[in-house]
Amino acid sequence: MSIKRIGILTAGGDCPGLNAVVRAATKYALKNNIEVFGFQNGFDGLVKNQYIILDDKAVSGILTRGGTILGTSNLANPFNYTLAPLASPQEPKDLSSMVLHTLKTNKIDALIAIGGDGTLSMASKFIDMGVKIIGVPKTIDNDLSATDFTFGFDSALAVASEAVDRIHTTAESHHRVMIVETMGRYAGWIALRSCIAGGGDICLIPEIPYNINTIANAIEQRHRKGKTFSIIVAAEGAVDETGKMAVQKKVEGSTDPIRLGGISGIIAAQLEKILNVECRVVVLGHLQRGGTPTAFDRWLATRFGAKAVDLILKEDFGNMVALRGTDIISVPIKEAVAKLKKVDPQGQEVAAALEVGTSFGSPVLG
Amino acid sequence: MSIKRIGILTAGGDCPGLNAVVRAATKYALKNNIEVFGFQNGFDGLVKNQYIILDDKAVSGILTRGGTILGTSNLANPFNYTLAPLASPQEPKDLSSMVLHTLKTNKIDALIAIGGDGTLSMASKFIDMGVKIIGVPKTIDNDLSATDFTFGFDSALAVASEAVDRIHTTAESHHRVMIVETMGRYAGWIALRSCIAGGGDICLIPEIPYNINTIANAIEQRHRKGKTFSIIVAAEGAVDETGKMAVQKKVEGSTDPIRLGGISGIIAAQLEKILNVECRVVVLGHLQRGGTPTAFDRWLATRFGAKAVDLILKEDFGNMVALRGTDIISVPIKEAVAKLKKVDPQGQEVAAALEVGTSFGSPVLG
Amino acid sequence: MSIKRIGILTAGGDCPGLNAVVRAATKYALKNNIEVFGFQNGFDGLVKNQYIILDDKAVSGILTRGGTILGTSNLANPFNYTLAPLASPQEPKDLSSMVLHTLKTNKIDALIAIGGDGTLSMASKFIDMGVKIIGVPKTIDNDLSATDFTFGFDSALAVASEAVDRIHTTAESHHRVMIVETMGRYAGWIALRSCIAGGGDICLIPEIPYNINTIANAIEQRHRKGKTFSIIVAAEGAVDETGKMAVQKKVEGSTDPIRLGGISGIIAAQLEKILNVECRVVVLGHLQRGGTPTAFDRWLATRFGAKAVDLILKEDFGNMVALRGTDIISVPIKEAVAKLKKVDPQGQEVAAALEVGTSFGSPVLG
Amino acid sequence: MSIKRIGILTAGGDCPGLNAVVRAATKYALKNNIEVFGFQNGFDGLVKNQYIILDDKAVSGILTRGGTILGTSNLANPFNYTLAPLASPQEPKDLSSMVLHTLKTNKIDALIAIGGDGTLSMASKFIDMGVKIIGVPKTIDNDLSATDFTFGFDSALAVASEAVDRIHTTAESHHRVMIVETMGRYAGWIALRSCIAGGGDICLIPEIPYNINTIANAIEQRHRKGKTFSIIVAAEGAVDETGKMAVQKKVEGSTDPIRLGGISGIIAAQLEKILNVECRVVVLGHLQRGGTPTAFDRWLATRFGAKAVDLILKEDFGNMVALRGTDIISVPIKEAVAKLKKVDPQGQEVAAALEVGTSFGSPVLG
Repeated sequence: MSIKRIGILTAGGDCPGLNAVVRAATKYALKNNIEVFGFQNGFDGLVKNQYIILDDKAVSGILTRGGTILGTSNLANPFNYTLAPLASPQEPKDLSSMVLHTLKTNKIDALIAIGGDGTLSMASKFIDMGVKIIGVPKTIDNDLSATDFTFGFDSALAVASEAVDRIHTTAESHHRVMIVETMGRYAGWIALRSCIAGGGDICLIPEIPYNINTIANAIEQRHRKGKTFSIIVAAEGAVDETGKMAVQKKVEGSTDPIRLGGISGIIAAQLEKILNVECRVVVLGHLQRGGTPTAFDRWLATRFGAKAVDLILKEDFGNMVALRGTDIISVPIKEAVAKLKKVDPQGQEVAAALEVGTSFGSPVLG
Repeated sequence: MSIKRIGILTAGGDCPGLNAVVRAATKYALKNNIEVFGFQNGFDGLVKNQYIILDDKAVSGILTRGGTILGTSNLANPFNYTLAPLASPQEPKDLSSMVLHTLKTNKIDALIAIGGDGTLSMASKFIDMGVKIIGVPKTIDNDLSATDFTFGFDSALAVASEAVDRIHTTAESHHRVMIVETMGRYAGWIALRSCIAGGGDICLIPEIPYNINTIANAIEQRHRKGKTFSIIVAAEGAVDETGKMAVQKKVEGSTDPIRLGGISGIIAAQLEKILNVECRVVVLGHLQRGGTPTAFDRWLATRFGAKAVDLILKEDFGNMVALRGTDIISVPIKEAVAKLKKVDPQGQEVAAALEVGTSFGSPVLG
Repeated sequence: MSIKRIGILTAGGDCPGLNAVVRAATKYALKNNIEVFGFQNGFDGLVKNQYIILDDKAVSGILTRGGTILGTSNLANPFNYTLAPLASPQEPKDLSSMVLHTLKTNKIDALIAIGGDGTLSMASKFIDMGVKIIGVPKTIDNDLSATDFTFGFDSALAVASEAVDRIHTTAESHHRVMIVETMGRYAGWIALRSCIAGGGDICLIPEIPYNINTIANAIEQRHRKGKTFSIIVAAEGAVDETGKMAVQKKVEGSTDPIRLGGISGIIAAQLEKILNVECRVVVLGHLQRGGTPTAFDRWLATRFGAKAVDLILKEDFGNMVALRGTDIISVPIKEAVAKLKKVDPQGQEVAAALEVGTSFGSPVLG
Repeated sequence: MSIKRIGILTAGGDCPGLNAVVRAATKYALKNNIEVFGFQNGFDGLVKNQYIILDDKAVSGILTRGGTILGTSNLANPFNYTLAPLASPQEPKDLSSMVLHTLKTNKIDALIAIGGDGTLSMASKFIDMGVKIIGVPKTIDNDLSATDFTFGFDSALAVASEAVDRIHTTAESHHRVMIVETMGRYAGWIALRSCIAGGGDICLIPEIPYNINTIANAIEQRHRKGKTFSIIVAAEGAVDETGKMAVQKKVEGSTDPIRLGGISGIIAAQLEKILNVECRVVVLGHLQRGGTPTAFDRWLATRFGAKAVDLILKEDFGNMVALRGTDIISVPIKEAVAKLKKVDPQGQEVAAALEVGTSFGSPVLG
């Protein structure tokens, strides 16, 4: 069988580099006389048969653009479909047959699914149903063990590190405590790496529970050494020793425990009370997902997109592309989604942070 | 009388460009064989006689650095002194005589005071007490009518506009409402200009009270036109129609009504309830004060610093430097601090924003 | 007469902010139910009747994009038409009647011409022929006296200043002479301001002829003071005392005296010979014209675009928009193009540069 | 034997991240009560016994700074010493015994040598003479096979890619050929990766000889497809089919064949002649070495610095730190310097570039 037409979709949270994957895959497919359908808003476009034709013009100039020209959705699960923004909620339904119908109707020979853990798990189910799929991993948190890096992570780090840089100058001048809240609900890579890259003083991540008094002590110790300011880099999912996100206990009446108030606001209030010192807060939020990808992410995304078509040409389906050292390789999707990569409190990365003077607000580690 | 030694201080909130002023003033003073004492932490250094000698080496390489090598303090008012970070609060005292003593002891012939409204008002009092002072205006909010622009404003705008840019890509991809919270408690210049420069959809500023339903309507109207995302740029001091900062009514038990929760969090929660749509929040905070100043701010700050020494050489004291068109001029400090420059709801700038499609969440203006 | 349809064109060298003008003018025109035709490649599109319809979708997302979606040409002079890239040269012809024909055929009631000196002079001729035109000034060199600033200049400055910053770190580490070549054939504003903003040591501009030995002396003097590196910021049009661009005398056989070799290469070679020191060169070229405009330029361009439509609505034709202080005003096109704004060797700006230690390689000024 | 005092030096061309290595190594050494001497200007400081004490204060705030606070020199070879900037040339001498003397006099127990191929080869000789050395690889060209990446490379890529981005907007608007000249005399990694990341059309690198007519054909082919502009990314060491750098044949009378004129100028002149089209040139030069390192480079440099001290604590001398996947490992210095990593014309990276439409001006590859 020869491949004549493929589909591409981008699903889950957006991530700098998505367009670079779409562009590279499209360019290489067209070069092999393969048509490319871009399904819109993740699996939602497959459910509703909504797509755009991706020709040379459609992907021209998108390499440097953040977001995704295909749109995305982190709500649209075809096996449990309930999408309804700006409308009243629906009962969840299994619409996976409509996805199969869309693929058949449009004569889509193979599908490139660009997405995170959830997307690749759905892809895995469709593979079991006979769909020919190549996966491209996308997680801004870089928490997939099957690949050294995922695109988007470097761009998020760039934003977070620059934020720590900026905060440095104002913290130094003013003698106070500044908290930079980064993404990372379950994995602390962005907070940890931007803390190392930015020279943060205290790093709070989901993998290492903190104690607020240990943090306060670290700040006082710095103060005694003449360092009258401290910078805390906190992942949004940082947890205190009780094992729960501090924020969940504090902000009542909010439907979203993370956003309103946020962990940085909570910690700031606690430290102001303990230390009688001004605390200021920066919440980076979606700044970390937006904007032009870094050169590294554009390179990696381009390599991923080209490799995905490579695998299609070789009809080597059911695999996901991945970075290993400096090579782009392929791994079975099923294996890839099985294992998350969290920060190891006993690992090299945390050790290096401790070696250059960062502490973790942890009574155990320092 | 010939000037042999001058003092410089930076007071109030920090601001990109402070070091550029210090450097320019020092370089030009040294060229005229005038010694330069850099008093530390604003007026606190004059109270406590703490300073560093500013020679060529001390100001080398600081042009591009954010913050201030002299440190600053927005607590240290010598007429009502109560500074005590990381310690128990003190009774306020008038320590202005200690300032005079410090100046006399060190044979300081003239003083360059770099600061905002508060600092220049204190400077004004010291002028009345016979101190020879040149003022350099510093307000990141650009709310001083005596000068076209103040340094730091452009750098803050650069950060805020880039944030709106980044948010654009992620908002577009995801079909949702994003809120970027900028500085500006009493003046909306940063929010307004970054909204114009970044192409924000709705702009909330202290000068134009908003109604939450008007905002919701604007978002729904956009949605009906096929624009499934909206970006709100909100000054931290935005107020609703009741005339109070929304946030003050909402977050109980917090000593600082702005920081914890913040206006963007409040508005997000309200809009989610009204519209059933995801809202995401970015709080820029001190990012807007930190980091390398823009080229414009470094140019302006350098011109201000050189002009300040110019006025000292001419013994033209009691004046503040200012930008008028492309010229650096001088205005009496007393006049300069008298009049704030707020956004005029009927002015050119708001009109232009409305013309390119920005709305203000205002039942009156749109 | 009421305006129902307008045309817009962008002519001359490209400049960050062009799209922001096009977007603002289009948005405001559409709001007034005026149709907008975007003529392509400057006056070439009027000669050939080539245009695109500018609707809401066409200008969506272009605010932050460099270049111009309309294309431009600095060859297409309809009064002396000879455009022929990638083809053999043509005899120049007067095709101005074809421009009038295009305007009439398409029922264009008024035209917004965005361009520099040359473009506005052509516009002026068409005004004499009865065409209703509003001019928007565009010169990256900021050399128009009718306006305080033109958009694009700030973006060019940002690139040039960041280049000087980057060069600083490598110059310091290595003890050598670095030359940054900026734009500016006839006016030195970019070189001068980026030198002030970036802390360059020596500034070479067309308005102040240099002597190579004076430059070498300045470098040796710095060396004696322990400053083992020097940074020269040189406008591409810098001239030596003979009054000719040094480069013209040096590179034989080149059709373009500026590009091949370039002034920085010439000066580097001369200084290496005189001083026995490594000289390194950076040629910024079109980096200064490309990329996302700064917040200031986007703001100014947006204000200019909206104001242009304002003037159309008021049928106040023959004028050009301009910035005066913080206001957008209008001035007659004919007056505006009459007077260039060059750097005044005796003016404030040069004085300030000298005050902070910059020299000009000039036997007269230092 | 326990380590009580170590030395650090930075040698060869400077590179973003050097200060981050120095900071990390110093911080971790001080934590282990090891004193740190920073020898100045590479091996020159060891020859002349010039150093600064690196304490906590000395490395504070340097993480983000480009260049190296220790200074560097790519002339100072102690085995063949002839350093004489701004002075008359000296006879080369073997001063390696002075290096040993300096180390002994100052009781330096071990040395961290941060440098490239040349530096590590010298280090290798000193290891044979009994000096305890840990190497940290530094090559902005990323051409060392022993490590996946070297710090500085990502920062250089960021500059080069952003340049290609900027050039894109101006090339598109103007319909012309733009050439961006990057670093890379013998290895084309920076040109190749920035071309992939920036979406350049034609890539010229030392490993793939070009033919000027093949380049011209590629541009004409693009033109026929309606793409009226082309962007060439050229490594400074790109060679034509004759096997020599084109530039060496063209610019007579210049002592440095690369700088004056440069390959981009030569190619521009040739293409203008063949194609009758405007060509514009950007020479990035030392921009690629200067400025704040990227987050990735700061992270990598910090990890390298900490690992170097780790190896010292384990007394595992004669090794160089390296990145393998996501781990920091150590490899024998002697092996590390033996093998350069050039771009493989038949490798994955070139294939990927071809797949997304980049050509190499090569009659063989396309």
